[in-house]
Amino acid sequence: MLAETLAAIRPADRRAIADARAHQDRLTKPRGSLGVLEEIAVRLAGASGACPPPMPFPAALAIFTADHGVHARGVSPWPQEVTVQMVANFLAGGAVANAFAAQVGASVTVVDVGVATDLPDAPNLVNRKIGYGTADLSKGPAMTVDQAVRALEAGITVARDLVDSGARCLITGDMGIANTTASAALISVFTGRDAAEVTGRGTGIDDETYERKVEIVREAILANGLTDGSGSPPQPSEALRALAAVGGFEHAAIAGFILGGAAARVPVILDGVIAGAGALAAAALDPGAIDHCVAGHRSAEPGHAAALDHLGLRPLVDLELRLGEGTGALLAHPMVCAAVRVMHDVATFDSAGVTEKPV
Amino acid sequence: MLAETLAAIRPADRRAIADARAHQDRLTKPRGSLGVLEEIAVRLAGASGACPPPMPFPAALAIFTADHGVHARGVSPWPQEVTVQMVANFLAGGAVANAFAAQVGASVTVVDVGVATDLPDAPNLVNRKIGYGTADLSKGPAMTVDQAVRALEAGITVARDLVDSGARCLITGDMGIANTTASAALISVFTGRDAAEVTGRGTGIDDETYERKVEIVREAILANGLTDGSGSPPQPSEALRALAAVGGFEHAAIAGFILGGAAARVPVILDGVIAGAGALAAAALDPGAIDHCVAGHRSAEPGHAAALDHLGLRPLVDLELRLGEGTGALLAHPMVCAAVRVMHDVATFDSAGVTEKPV
Repeated sequence: MLAETLAAIRPADRRAIADARAHQDRLTKPRGSLGVLEEIAVRLAGASGACPPPMPFPAALAIFTADHGVHARGVSPWPQEVTVQMVANFLAGGAVANAFAAQVGASVTVVDVGVATDLPDAPNLVNRKIGYGTADLSKGPAMTVDQAVRALEAGITVARDLVDSGARCLITGDMGIANTTASAALISVFTGRDAAEVTGRGTGIDDETYERKVEIVREAILANGLTDGSGSPPQPSEALRALAAVGGFEHAAIAGFILGGAAARVPVILDGVIAGAGALAAAALDPGAIDHCVAGHRSAEPGHAAALDHLGLRPLVDLELRLGEGTGALLAHPMVCAAVRVMHDVATFDSAGVTEKPV
Repeated sequence: MLAETLAAIRPADRRAIADARAHQDRLTKPRGSLGVLEEIAVRLAGASGACPPPMPFPAALAIFTADHGVHARGVSPWPQEVTVQMVANFLAGGAVANAFAAQVGASVTVVDVGVATDLPDAPNLVNRKIGYGTADLSKGPAMTVDQAVRALEAGITVARDLVDSGARCLITGDMGIANTTASAALISVFTGRDAAEVTGRGTGIDDETYERKVEIVREAILANGLTDGSGSPPQPSEALRALAAVGGFEHAAIAGFILGGAAARVPVILDGVIAGAGALAAAALDPGAIDHCVAGHRSAEPGHAAALDHLGLRPLVDLELRLGEGTGALLAHPMVCAAVRVMHDVATFDSAGVTEKPV
């Protein structure tokens, strides 16, 4: 399924991009006056192969949730049970992601790809459990390559199912105590930056814990024989092994979700640092997948800026959020819709009888 | 009416602010993890005097439109008729502001406070015309003080009427060819910054026109005997005279709209540089009015950043927009709603049974 999905991904359509740029310049507004939003509309034209691109509505948020063996090393002040407690909170509609999803009219699906305990069935919960948490990445591979592929395929399937149910925009979400540690390791490996540059304080840790976290990220890279910050990113053929070695189940699933969205030509709005790390893995498997992505926001985690920089994406929201769950991407969704709506609804200088500025 | 409105404005309620901060810290998210949005929710609690604050929905956009005598000095490459052509475009639903308003569910009202020609009646057009464009501010006062007061009162009335019709959030919009010149003059006068620091290229001008525009802003300040960049901002008692001298009808009306929203305790989302200039005038008349404002975005105009800095407001959207019409503020509206919705909908650690991080 992974191979077929990769084969189905088309890079951006240059003709639709040219059409979209020309159309933008005919609309009743000074040229370029919508700034970054003009680029978003052009980008989605390229991704969809249509000008104007389809409205990215309704949106579907998938929160990929899993636990992490590295939690045992004390990288987070929160107990591991919080992952499963927050899953219950998502399913009850009580989390910030639920409030933001309600605000933008997005559905919420929670996907268990590797929570440490069994979860009771629930209507919006999809069971794609691959393990009861990953192994400790600082000692060796967090996942086997087979597990990573299964997590990728879980993400692909979720994307496909949501699109089949009518979603026209996919939004990445995540929950997993300790997952910023795996994110930092992935970002270091895929961007070639040093661990200290891309490791952050996650949901809030003191200086001592932070120093330990950076050290653990370094250990993980060494223990798995991966390139450190001094070297270059892994080759595509090595990408799967790298993802399995230092990723989490949710990172692999998010990478698959991106690939699945790209294959279906439905745009994917990326949330924060976890999604950024997943997107680096997706890009290593197929760079064309990123043409279908929009960076929803930039989180306060330093690794996120590094990931976006590497992917060539400019975030829409930059408000010091550091919550995850998909919250930053949800906030961006109305702006992505607004950018596309301009292409559908706004009059041209000709049609509205508005005088164009003399060039 | 102006005096009564000023008397009705209450500054932020400290108790509601304290309650809102305490509530934020009980919600199922790491403390502070919603970044700037937590401050927005707290700000609206203070403005409304309630915790949680009322949902700022539905929103109403008012586009204040007028012409400017200074247009004759060649400060804009667009002919003056574009103001009235764009009014027709707003009323037909073909402008970017219409598309963005549709996206966020906001109503659109166009208010003629001083377009250079008479406009035919239309359902969403409010006629509060004070003159057929202002006088040339580079030669003397753009408005009389009496005209400025009438424009302020037009804005107050529009705010009151929209709130009476059910609006729970007011959004500032503007249209007026050459209005960035008057904005620069107002911002220079009210912030004490030099004309060159706060004058921008508006909808797009060449170097020669830009140099002339800066010179005209300086001339306007001198011709009206106002403080230049080297001096200090005018006293509140002088604010009306300064607004009349170098403002536009729409700047005065937007200042009134802000005062009207503040008096009704309904939040006002400010758009770009025109709204920033109007907000400086409102703040000079009553600093408490700004407690009821949210900065929707930061435009590409340099004077806007200066105005926001002076007002102590941090913009939510920063995407190089330079269109006006209310577009930046409309984009911010769903984020303001999301910030408030968190206070209404999100579970607390206690209610959701989620373990709090050990402090």
